Amino acid sequence: MVFTRGGVDESIHGVHLAVVDADGKLIASCGDPDLVTFPRSSSKPVQALPLALAAPELPSDELAIACASHAGTPEHLTAVMRLLERSGSTVADLRCGTHPPFDAVVAAELIRTGERPTPLHHNCSGKHAGMLLSCVLNGWPKEGYTEHGHPLQVRIRELHAELGGVSLEAVEAGTDGCSVPAFALPLGAAARIFAGLARPSGEYAEALERIFGAMTEHPFLVAGPGRLDTTLMPLVPGLVAKMGAEAFYGMGLRETPRGPLGIAFKIMDGGERARAHVALAVLEALGIPLTPEMQALAPATLHNWAGREVGGVRVELPLVWA
Amino acid sequence: MVFTRGGVDESIHGVHLAVVDADGKLIASCGDPDLVTFPRSSSKPVQALPLALAAPELPSDELAIACASHAGTPEHLTAVMRLLERSGSTVADLRCGTHPPFDAVVAAELIRTGERPTPLHHNCSGKHAGMLLSCVLNGWPKEGYTEHGHPLQVRIRELHAELGGVSLEAVEAGTDGCSVPAFALPLGAAARIFAGLARPSGEYAEALERIFGAMTEHPFLVAGPGRLDTTLMPLVPGLVAKMGAEAFYGMGLRETPRGPLGIAFKIMDGGERARAHVALAVLEALGIPLTPEMQALAPATLHNWAGREVGGVRVELPLVWA
Repeated sequence: MVFTRGGVDESIHGVHLAVVDADGKLIASCGDPDLVTFPRSSSKPVQALPLALAAPELPSDELAIACASHAGTPEHLTAVMRLLERSGSTVADLRCGTHPPFDAVVAAELIRTGERPTPLHHNCSGKHAGMLLSCVLNGWPKEGYTEHGHPLQVRIRELHAELGGVSLEAVEAGTDGCSVPAFALPLGAAARIFAGLARPSGEYAEALERIFGAMTEHPFLVAGPGRLDTTLMPLVPGLVAKMGAEAFYGMGLRETPRGPLGIAFKIMDGGERARAHVALAVLEALGIPLTPEMQALAPATLHNWAGREVGGVRVELPLVWA
Repeated sequence: MVFTRGGVDESIHGVHLAVVDADGKLIASCGDPDLVTFPRSSSKPVQALPLALAAPELPSDELAIACASHAGTPEHLTAVMRLLERSGSTVADLRCGTHPPFDAVVAAELIRTGERPTPLHHNCSGKHAGMLLSCVLNGWPKEGYTEHGHPLQVRIRELHAELGGVSLEAVEAGTDGCSVPAFALPLGAAARIFAGLARPSGEYAEALERIFGAMTEHPFLVAGPGRLDTTLMPLVPGLVAKMGAEAFYGMGLRETPRGPLGIAFKIMDGGERARAHVALAVLEALGIPLTPEMQALAPATLHNWAGREVGGVRVELPLVWA
């Protein structure tokens, strides 16, 4: 996809994309659907699965925050604190590190008051709180819960393979921005994970259904003000969507002309600004009509600081049908 | 160039690059040296040339701020104000628009004090102040100085063609983030502009020499704390360098084994994080030894929020020698 200025193509983002049906069969692609890459935070529904399995009564807002890359608003922090307390943990147990909250208003408020951000503000703090509760409920030590060899992380790697329909050897490991393992797998396998959220089946069906419900019922908790997951999910019936760093995106669609589908894509260069444009283009290509509210999430024109129109966005998504 | 995580390539940035010698002859390239693209703020030395020609006695710090994409520190604002006063102008005459200062410390200070950013904080305010003085000294109206048809902008377009060694028709026009025309030209032509700064000749030689002197004597004014132009220029004898938005970079090198050279490159996707890595790789390929201080500007390893090493950067710059 291309960002233009005047009549000239200024910057170009390459896209790799895979679409699978409810049986996990590849039905369409763009670029290389076998590209092995990191879903990053798009893995959070998988990382929350051991929690969903161990805590069938967990309130859905707490399950949602465990799947979130949140913006650090008070509403997000409250949900994280509640989840944290369930395992008898405190902020001091979180191993995610600290960054200023994603939400600009909250970030400015911290600067104004002279308050420092804490690990609670880290966009992954809900995931970490969920992991701590997972450990307690499964009888694993909380100590070292972020390490590659910890039973929770070993289990999460297995779940990536199981839900992605690939061998354990096909799941490569790195370390994420929040210090837990990040797993890389082929795009088609990541799409299968999201198809599994759209139409849960097998031994994890009930837990996956609760994760789908939690994320779609609490889109604000999953991300935050103005962020794509939060704004897009309520506009598309039966859509579960989760952003990952470096411009990864996963979507599970319950209702399409082709039945439930799973979609995963990666902007080659990690260019986050391309994500919303590509997400809408693939939804449209899959038969989801784009409403004006949806189109407003990916404006086709670019304006400068003085409000003048200076360019546009041209989406080229040459889907190849399998 | 590739950003890796664990052992996996995570994100990839494509590069187009041109290197020309002092005669403007292409001597090396990567990707497409004929790519027509916008230098954006890398055009500022050309945009300041009418000012340098009309104001031979202008202090070098004011000429430097006219060439700057500055960070909005008090030192930058003072220089802009002085330049603005020379044309009897005020902040109200600036047509650049307003954005929060690039410098995080200054931006936070504004938030703390509740002060709003003004057009002075816009990274291009020095260029605009210079343009206003250009108008007064050349007898052109200040009114409408940002418009494509204004005599100043017409002249700047001609200068792009002249210094780039291309026809006027080869210079395409868009509008920049600060509302003045942005001109697009082939990468090789942009490299010629920087070769002309490294070894000025012809009718503009004296003014180009003063621009070179101003930028290299005041690297802080040209950008700001931690920004590449500011940090790199003092480390490489005879280097003039200027960043442009969407990951453009122009460098003029006075002293290399091949004599004075001009370099221009564009990260295809506009990925700013790749710029320093590519700049160092091309300097090394052109025979400039990389010191530890230079290498520190483009770290080969990536760390996460908790300070853990999570990945690296692999620079692939397959230079083709002409």
